[in-house]
Amino acid sequence: MQLTDLPTPSLVLDLDRVERNCAAMLERARQHGVTLRPHLKTAKSADLARLASSGPTWPITVSTLTEVAYFAAHGFRDMTYAVGIAVHKLDTLAALHRKHGLVLRLLADQVATIDAVGRRAAELEARFELLIEIDCGGGRGGVTADGRELLELARAISAWPSLSLVGVLTHAGQSYATAGAGSIAAIAETERSSALRAATRLREAGFESPVVSIGSTPTVVWAATLAGVTEIRPGVYTLFDLDQVALGVCTVEDIAASVIATVIGHNPRSRRVLIDAGALALSKDQSANAFAEDLGYGLVATVDGARVMAGLRVAEVHQEHGLIAGPEPVDGAGTDDLFARLPIGARVRILPQHACMTTAPYGHYDLVRGESSEIIARWHKASGHTVTTSDWSPT
Amino acid sequence: MQLTDLPTPSLVLDLDRVERNCAAMLERARQHGVTLRPHLKTAKSADLARLASSGPTWPITVSTLTEVAYFAAHGFRDMTYAVGIAVHKLDTLAALHRKHGLVLRLLADQVATIDAVGRRAAELEARFELLIEIDCGGGRGGVTADGRELLELARAISAWPSLSLVGVLTHAGQSYATAGAGSIAAIAETERSSALRAATRLREAGFESPVVSIGSTPTVVWAATLAGVTEIRPGVYTLFDLDQVALGVCTVEDIAASVIATVIGHNPRSRRVLIDAGALALSKDQSANAFAEDLGYGLVATVDGARVMAGLRVAEVHQEHGLIAGPEPVDGAGTDDLFARLPIGARVRILPQHACMTTAPYGHYDLVRGESSEIIARWHKASGHTVTTSDWSPT
Repeated sequence: MQLTDLPTPSLVLDLDRVERNCAAMLERARQHGVTLRPHLKTAKSADLARLASSGPTWPITVSTLTEVAYFAAHGFRDMTYAVGIAVHKLDTLAALHRKHGLVLRLLADQVATIDAVGRRAAELEARFELLIEIDCGGGRGGVTADGRELLELARAISAWPSLSLVGVLTHAGQSYATAGAGSIAAIAETERSSALRAATRLREAGFESPVVSIGSTPTVVWAATLAGVTEIRPGVYTLFDLDQVALGVCTVEDIAASVIATVIGHNPRSRRVLIDAGALALSKDQSANAFAEDLGYGLVATVDGARVMAGLRVAEVHQEHGLIAGPEPVDGAGTDDLFARLPIGARVRILPQHACMTTAPYGHYDLVRGESSEIIARWHKASGHTVTTSDWSPT
Repeated sequence: MQLTDLPTPSLVLDLDRVERNCAAMLERARQHGVTLRPHLKTAKSADLARLASSGPTWPITVSTLTEVAYFAAHGFRDMTYAVGIAVHKLDTLAALHRKHGLVLRLLADQVATIDAVGRRAAELEARFELLIEIDCGGGRGGVTADGRELLELARAISAWPSLSLVGVLTHAGQSYATAGAGSIAAIAETERSSALRAATRLREAGFESPVVSIGSTPTVVWAATLAGVTEIRPGVYTLFDLDQVALGVCTVEDIAASVIATVIGHNPRSRRVLIDAGALALSKDQSANAFAEDLGYGLVATVDGARVMAGLRVAEVHQEHGLIAGPEPVDGAGTDDLFARLPIGARVRILPQHACMTTAPYGHYDLVRGESSEIIARWHKASGHTVTTSDWSPT
């Protein structure tokens, strides 16, 4: 089976690049002396997780019940659920916990949540490990490392025999809002020092905090030191994307996931080449455009991935249509050239703006290696929100 | 089962509103004397299609192979595949065609496509009906109603015994880029007259063109006349959304699909309420914001849908987090009030920016009627790109 035999749009993974990305991050973690607990919200694939994580416990990070169920069914036992928990999810989590013997770590940053979770866990005769979420500047979840809430949360957790405090976790989401090694390194240091400060305060108050967990791909790539940190949770580095290129975290040659599309039309009036990959196949994410020249909804590469086609971008998306634009024409001569480069029926490879958003809805990856067009494997994956736990039947 | 028993995020459908939206459009079609061939790319549900279409042939419009397979498996036989076709999709379409006895209409706007489709259809011993796509100003697919290409396409179709020309089709995509009854009505007239002009030219040249198909939700709602048109293909009216509200096509009370989410956090520093519905649960679409005050990534309603919560919007989305913002605080007093309105564990209903994007990844709808919290049914649906035909097993 070849790339040209796939239905389009299809999601393709370059296994050479995935292996390189995963090995590089494992080596980075080794050098820093920290555990790599990769965030699988990006790739949602058990096959990929086996490259990204490592033994003996194969720790991973997830962010939905679907992902917990999927990875548990595929043999993963050590998971951190890195989105603030809602108490009604405990019944499902407790059932998965019991069935698979999971080590399942949950986040909390509210006494109300801790008390509700503690009570429900006791009713379910389940035990959960809790991490206190720290807000190191992202303004999303978490309490500050220095505020009084931190110790109140620790005391609230300690009051429940069904819960055990295992440490602190933070995510410098603001690292996606800046570009370049220097400014990202500064955020990485804030992320590290905030987590460490919170863990130190807990320890000084007599609480145990063995886990000091930080990470986003940009901060762990550019951090100068991870002293005091025990684990990192990057995710998008497994696939990389144009957003990470724009932030200065990787190069276009590191992007491992892409979408294969077919040219279905030429419109000389709008100077657009139509492809059968639109807003659902690519997503409407345009994160990279804050830090790069206009990359539209993705760049256009040759179908074998060998080179990016200069000057082309997916300029417009509708539900199932993508519209590729070329360079502005000189003397009105540009369109014919654009259409000749991308004839009707030709296939192209679209490099995604944001891999997490583009890959989410697909049910599988078709794998190639480098510039070979041969499909060497199909990796099934969990999808975004398509499977609720009640529908999910692990095989 | 109640709304409060659902896992979150969940996709909910108000059946009262769906029935009203579907009945109103059927009545509009009846008054105009045209066939309603609803576009099911929006709702992707056979149960909903039975409300939106009508006998004896139950015509529908679709835009992916997944949708063709899904609706064929659920008994629909008369479909128009309203995205320019790629020849490699014919094998799957021919197999579905043969298995289910479909009437399957495909689009073409390129001689190269017609020749490739005609040849492959002949090899597969299949016959397809073709519609010539007309570009009435959207700059997407199609040829102009007045250009020489129109008759060249008709001649190319006629040359293939495996193909039959059945008419013309256009979609005024530009109706989404303007707001208000007057300007939309002007676009509707361009859409109607372009399609009619193309059909007339075909007929004058001796070709049959029984089908004159137009439509987007905005244009069919505001068209003054549909004289000469034979069918309309609106889609988003089945569910409606904030984008259609912003365009002046419906009111907030017409929005039938929404996402139920749980409050999982309060961040006093960023003045945000965190919910467990983020970019994958809601989409990153912000179409409505071009024509309305900032609606963020959706408006916040009470969980029973009874009222929109004044001043609240989903201001920020990350993969699985949504961040709700309230009105700007006066004298620093705003945050406490916001958090009191949305306590930890509370449920809210998010009204979507763009229903086609928000609903696509979900596997089913849970149904309520009006402000009742009782779940009266679950409707399964096709998902966006999650099922390729090779995975699809109709029951």
